[in-house]
Amino acid sequence: MTGAVSRKSFGSDNHAGTHPAVMRAIVEANAGDAIPYGGDPWTEKAIGEIRRLSGAQGEAYLVLNGSGANVLGLGLLLGRHEAVICAESAHINTDECGAAERVLGTKLLTVPAQDGKLTPELIATRFVGRGDEHFAQPGVVAITQSTEFGTCYSLDELRAIKEFCAANRLRVFLDGARLANAAAYLGCTLADLAGNADVLSFGGTKNGAMGVEAVIVMHAADTPNARYLRKQHGQLSSKMRFLGAQFDALLTDDLWLANAAHANAMAARLATGLAEIPGVEVVYPVQSDVVFARLDPNHIAELQRDWIFHVWDEGASVVRWMTAFDTQESDVDAFLSDIAAAAGVVRV
Amino acid sequence: MTGAVSRKSFGSDNHAGTHPAVMRAIVEANAGDAIPYGGDPWTEKAIGEIRRLSGAQGEAYLVLNGSGANVLGLGLLLGRHEAVICAESAHINTDECGAAERVLGTKLLTVPAQDGKLTPELIATRFVGRGDEHFAQPGVVAITQSTEFGTCYSLDELRAIKEFCAANRLRVFLDGARLANAAAYLGCTLADLAGNADVLSFGGTKNGAMGVEAVIVMHAADTPNARYLRKQHGQLSSKMRFLGAQFDALLTDDLWLANAAHANAMAARLATGLAEIPGVEVVYPVQSDVVFARLDPNHIAELQRDWIFHVWDEGASVVRWMTAFDTQESDVDAFLSDIAAAAGVVRV
Amino acid sequence: MTGAVSRKSFGSDNHAGTHPAVMRAIVEANAGDAIPYGGDPWTEKAIGEIRRLSGAQGEAYLVLNGSGANVLGLGLLLGRHEAVICAESAHINTDECGAAERVLGTKLLTVPAQDGKLTPELIATRFVGRGDEHFAQPGVVAITQSTEFGTCYSLDELRAIKEFCAANRLRVFLDGARLANAAAYLGCTLADLAGNADVLSFGGTKNGAMGVEAVIVMHAADTPNARYLRKQHGQLSSKMRFLGAQFDALLTDDLWLANAAHANAMAARLATGLAEIPGVEVVYPVQSDVVFARLDPNHIAELQRDWIFHVWDEGASVVRWMTAFDTQESDVDAFLSDIAAAAGVVRV
Amino acid sequence: MTGAVSRKSFGSDNHAGTHPAVMRAIVEANAGDAIPYGGDPWTEKAIGEIRRLSGAQGEAYLVLNGSGANVLGLGLLLGRHEAVICAESAHINTDECGAAERVLGTKLLTVPAQDGKLTPELIATRFVGRGDEHFAQPGVVAITQSTEFGTCYSLDELRAIKEFCAANRLRVFLDGARLANAAAYLGCTLADLAGNADVLSFGGTKNGAMGVEAVIVMHAADTPNARYLRKQHGQLSSKMRFLGAQFDALLTDDLWLANAAHANAMAARLATGLAEIPGVEVVYPVQSDVVFARLDPNHIAELQRDWIFHVWDEGASVVRWMTAFDTQESDVDAFLSDIAAAAGVVRV
Repeated sequence: MTGAVSRKSFGSDNHAGTHPAVMRAIVEANAGDAIPYGGDPWTEKAIGEIRRLSGAQGEAYLVLNGSGANVLGLGLLLGRHEAVICAESAHINTDECGAAERVLGTKLLTVPAQDGKLTPELIATRFVGRGDEHFAQPGVVAITQSTEFGTCYSLDELRAIKEFCAANRLRVFLDGARLANAAAYLGCTLADLAGNADVLSFGGTKNGAMGVEAVIVMHAADTPNARYLRKQHGQLSSKMRFLGAQFDALLTDDLWLANAAHANAMAARLATGLAEIPGVEVVYPVQSDVVFARLDPNHIAELQRDWIFHVWDEGASVVRWMTAFDTQESDVDAFLSDIAAAAGVVRV
Repeated sequence: MTGAVSRKSFGSDNHAGTHPAVMRAIVEANAGDAIPYGGDPWTEKAIGEIRRLSGAQGEAYLVLNGSGANVLGLGLLLGRHEAVICAESAHINTDECGAAERVLGTKLLTVPAQDGKLTPELIATRFVGRGDEHFAQPGVVAITQSTEFGTCYSLDELRAIKEFCAANRLRVFLDGARLANAAAYLGCTLADLAGNADVLSFGGTKNGAMGVEAVIVMHAADTPNARYLRKQHGQLSSKMRFLGAQFDALLTDDLWLANAAHANAMAARLATGLAEIPGVEVVYPVQSDVVFARLDPNHIAELQRDWIFHVWDEGASVVRWMTAFDTQESDVDAFLSDIAAAAGVVRV
Repeated sequence: MTGAVSRKSFGSDNHAGTHPAVMRAIVEANAGDAIPYGGDPWTEKAIGEIRRLSGAQGEAYLVLNGSGANVLGLGLLLGRHEAVICAESAHINTDECGAAERVLGTKLLTVPAQDGKLTPELIATRFVGRGDEHFAQPGVVAITQSTEFGTCYSLDELRAIKEFCAANRLRVFLDGARLANAAAYLGCTLADLAGNADVLSFGGTKNGAMGVEAVIVMHAADTPNARYLRKQHGQLSSKMRFLGAQFDALLTDDLWLANAAHANAMAARLATGLAEIPGVEVVYPVQSDVVFARLDPNHIAELQRDWIFHVWDEGASVVRWMTAFDTQESDVDAFLSDIAAAAGVVRV
Repeated sequence: MTGAVSRKSFGSDNHAGTHPAVMRAIVEANAGDAIPYGGDPWTEKAIGEIRRLSGAQGEAYLVLNGSGANVLGLGLLLGRHEAVICAESAHINTDECGAAERVLGTKLLTVPAQDGKLTPELIATRFVGRGDEHFAQPGVVAITQSTEFGTCYSLDELRAIKEFCAANRLRVFLDGARLANAAAYLGCTLADLAGNADVLSFGGTKNGAMGVEAVIVMHAADTPNARYLRKQHGQLSSKMRFLGAQFDALLTDDLWLANAAHANAMAARLATGLAEIPGVEVVYPVQSDVVFARLDPNHIAELQRDWIFHVWDEGASVVRWMTAFDTQESDVDAFLSDIAAAAGVVRV
C-alpha cells in the first residue's frame, strides 16, 4: 500500500511520518520481553534524559498524544474547583473537542490574544470575581509555546508571566506540543523554557516521533497524583518501551532540536519566498514551522487542487501552511512556484 | 541497549514485543505524508476489515490502549445517569485505577463471579431498586471474553446473557482485550462473538501488536457520540496510520487467530506439564493464554528468582502464568523444569 | 434577631423574604407525616398544575435552587459529548462558578449578545467545526427569559430561535429563573413561553418563594434520566412537601403573575423616575424587575452608604437596581429621592 | 389540604414534618430583606454555634440535603484521583444513586461490615495495590454515625479508626445525617464526635428541621475549595437565612439533642415492647431511632395495610421501623398492639 499523499503536504507537521532514527529505535526496542507500563530501560533512559534537560525536580511521564498530555498536565495543577485562563486560540480551547471540560470538569476562561500570546495584562482581565463563589476561580494559566499561530514567547515574556502568576496564586501550564520549535527559534535550552512553567508538555509527535509526548512536572510536590491520573485518563501505555525508544532517539545527538530547526528553516524559506509574491500577505511573525498567509480565495482554491493545507479562517481568507522535519527545500520551492502561478506571477 | 528481561517472561502477554509482521507493517507505513486522525488508507483498510469480520452495522474506532477502549465503549452505551453491572474480577473494576468512574462518572455494580463469568442469574442479583431514584440504575452489563481468569464464555452462554439483557433493558459491552484467544479457543468467528454484544473492544496489544485496540459498535444508532468521545477521552491518535497498519497486519492471513492459537497452545502445554508435578494445582480451566496455579509459597519465591510472573493472590498462594504469541515450546519446557525442581520433583 | 437590611434592598430579588401566602402554605403543610421525596399531595398538586400551565407532555421536577435547575435541565438535553451555545452574559456562564462544566463536563460556547438575547444569527456563529471531532459540538442552545439584563425575548423571537434550533439539530433549554417576570411583561401564558423550549426552568425563589424551582420537560422522551440525575445532582429534597407547598401557593389565584407584575411595575416606576434625573442613564430596556443604570462613580459610592445594590460593571460605572414582589412604591420613591440628591438634583 | 399519612409513620424520620420551634424560627426570619447566600445574621449565628460546638478550626457550611452534604464533604478531602473506602451498607453506596461517582468521579471501595461499622481491620482489607497505578487508591475512609443499621460507634471505636487512618495516610469523612442520635445515645458532645473526623456532615433534616445539613471542616487547611464546590454542586442556597434559622432553633437550648433523645427513646420503647412479642426478632442493637426486626412475611403484609414502613430485606423478611422527634408513646404502643395482633399475640 502506498501513502495517501503524493506530494509533500503543507497541512500539518503530523502529516509527516516518523523520522528514520526514531523508527530505527522502535525496531531495535523490539527485542524480547520487557516489563510493561514503563518498567523498561528505554523508558527509564528517556525519563532520565527529559528530567536532566528540563531541570525538573519532579517526574516526567510519557503519554500517548497531545490532548492526553494537556489534560493530564492541567489536572496535576488544578484544584478540584478551579478554572483555567488561556488564550481564545489555545489548542485546549479550540481543537480538543472540550476534552479539558469533559475529563477535568474545569472551565476555560478565555482571552482574545494577539498572536496567540498571553501577557500579565491579558491574564488580569479574567480576575473578575476572584474570591466570590459565584465566579469561576482561575487556578492555572495555560500558555502554548510555540503558539497556535506559530509565534514564540521570548524568555523574558515567559518569565514575566511566571512571576505574575506566582504573585497572583496561579500556576503555569505550558502546552509544549511544539516546544522544540520554540527552543530552536530562541536558541535556548529546554530548561530555559521549562523553568517558566510548573508543568509542561514536551511534544514528540509533531517533531518526528511516531506518537509520544512527555508531561514534565517541575516540582516534586505536584507529582503524587500523576501516575494515577495518567492511568485514569487512558494515557498509560502498556508496551511503553516503544514510547521510550522514540524519545531516546529524539534526545540522542539533539535530534529533537535538529528536526525542529529544520522545520523552522523550511517555514522561513517559505515566508521569504512569499515576500516576493504580490497578493500574498504573511499575517503572523514566522517563528516556528508554520506560515499563516492571506491570499485571494480563488487562488486558495486553485492551490488546493494539488496541495494539502488548511484554510484557517475562511472569512478572512487566511490559510495555514506548515512544514515538518522532512520538508525538503525542493518541496518549498515547488510550492512557492505554484503559489506564484496561482497568484498570476511568473517567478524567475 | 538490550531489553529488560533475559528469559521469556510469563508475567503477561504485554511483556512480549511486537510481532515481526506487525512491525514490518509499521515500517512500511512510514512512507511519506498521510492524512492524520484516521484519514489514511491503512486505517481505512483496517476499519473495513474489522467491520466485515465482526458484522458490525455501526462503525469501528481505533484507540490507543485497553483502558481507553473500555471507557469509550462503556461511554457509548451508558445513559448519563446509568451504572454498569460487572464481575468483581472485571478489569474495569480491578485494574484501571477507577478510570470508568473518573471519566464517565458511572458506578460499577459488582458481582462475585465464579471463573470471572457472569450469568443471567448473577446479573439479576443487581436489579434491586430498579426504578427507585435512590438506587444506582444499571444500564450496561460488562463482560470480558476471555475473562480475567483465562476462562471463556461459550457462545451459548454469551447468547443467554445477550437475550437476558435485551429482555431487561440492558446493553452488553464486551471487553475483548483477549477476544482473539477466545475465538481461537472456541473455534468461532469474530462475528460469532461480536453478535452477542452491543459494543465491544477487540484487542491488538496483547496479541502481537505494538499498541492498538478497536472499539466496535454493532448498531449504527450507537455511533453518533463515538468520534467525539474518542477525542475527548484522549484516544484519538494523530499519526493513526501506525495504528491502522498494526491491525492490517494482524488481520492479514488471520495472523490474529494464529497468534492467539499459539499463545493458547503454549498455556495448554504448560497446564499439561503441571498436571505431572505434585503440589501444583491449576485453579481455573485453561481456555486461553493463561494458567492460574496454586503452589507452595516457598516454591513461588524460588521460581521468582529466575522467572517473571505475578503472584495473583498472596493469601491463597495463587500465581498467574501467562504465555504470548512468541512463547516457545522450549520456554514452556524450561519453565516446567524449574517449577518441577522448585517443587522438589525430578522430571524425566 | 432582626434582619440584616434596614431599608428595602435594591440588590436583588433574592434579598426579599418569602411572600406571606407562600409562608402560610409552608406552615400549613407542616401537618403530621408525609411520604418524602415527592410522594406527598402538595408536590403532586404543584406538579400537576405546572404541567397544566406549561402544556408539558413530559414531567416537571421540583428542585432546590436555580443552579440546580439549570444543570439538571441542561443534563437532560445534552448528549454525553455535547456543548452548549449561550450568551456570554448567561447566568450559567458568569454566575454559577463553572457548575455546568464541573457537573456535566460540558463546554459553553459563548456569544457576545446585545441585551443578553441570542438570535439565530448569533447562534450560527458557533457552528464552526460541526462534524469535526476536534471541535466542541453544540447540542443545546441555552437562553434566559427574562435575561440577565432584564430584557425579554418576544414570543416571535423565541419562536424564531426554536425553529432555527430544530432545523439545526439543536435543543433549546430556557433558564426561567425569572420567567414569571417575562410572562407578566409579555402578557402571555406559561405555555406560550414553555412551548418554545425543550426543557426549561421555572423559578419560584426570586418571585416570592422561600427556595424552590421547577424543571419542566416538555417532551416525554426527555424524561427517563430526570429523576436519577436530580438525585445524583443533589437536588432531590427529602421533605419535599415544603417545596410543593410553595408552588401551590404561587400558582393559586395567579400569585406568581401578580408578584412578578408588581416587581416589574416597581422597576418601571424606578425607570420612569430616573428619566427625570440628569446624569443617570438607563442602559437596557426595562422589561422586567431590574434597571441597569450608568451614573457618576462618586454618586454610586454615596448611594451605597444607605442602599444595597450591585455595581455591575465598575469600568463602565453601571449599577444594577432590582425590585422584588415586596418592593413598595414608597421604597422606590425614597430611593429615587436619594439618587436625585446624590446626582445633585433637587426633586420637587 | 391534609397530609398524606393518617397515622404516625414508622417509615423514616423524614416522614415527620418540621419541629414547631424550627418552623417558628423560619417564620420569624421572614422579616424584610437580608443579604443572600449566607451573608445574613441567622446563618452567621448558626455557623458560629456549629463551629463552637464541634470544635472545628475550619469552617462550617450549610447545605440543602444529605446527599449534597456527603458529596461536598468527600470532595473536600479527596485528591483528584482518589477513592473512598466505605461499608457496603453506607448511604453513599446504596442510597444516593451513584452521586459520589457521578459528581466526584471517585470510586467506592466497599467492605461488608457487621452492623454497618468499619474497623481498622476491615479498612485494611482494601489496601491491596496501594502505590500501584492500576489499582484505585483510597484517600478517604467514610463512616456513618449513627450507622444505616441504627448502631453507634463508641468513641473508642471512632478514635481507633481515626488513628489508624492518620497512620495510613487516609482522611476520615463522617456521614452524620443522624449524628444527633449518636450524641444522644453516647451521652457525648458534638466535639467528641467531630474530633474523630476530618470533615463531617451534621444532619438537621432527619432531626426536626425542614431541610438543612451542615458540612463541618475540622481543619482550616481543608477549606479553600469549600465555598466554590458548594456552589458548583448546587448546594448554595439563595435565601440562606431560612437554613440558618433552622439550625439556630435546633441549637437553642439543645433542641437538637432533645429531639434525638426523644426519637431514640421511642425506638427503645418499641424494642422493649417487641421483646415480649414472640416471632419478632430485633436484628441489630437498638442504639438510635430505628429498629430492624425480622418477622413473618404474612405479618409484615398485614401490618402494612395500616402502617407505613419499609421492608428492608425481603429475602430475609427484615423490616425497618423508624421513629422521629414527634413520635408519641401512644404511637409506639398502638403500633406494638398491632404488631402483637398480627403476630397472633393477645397483649395485656
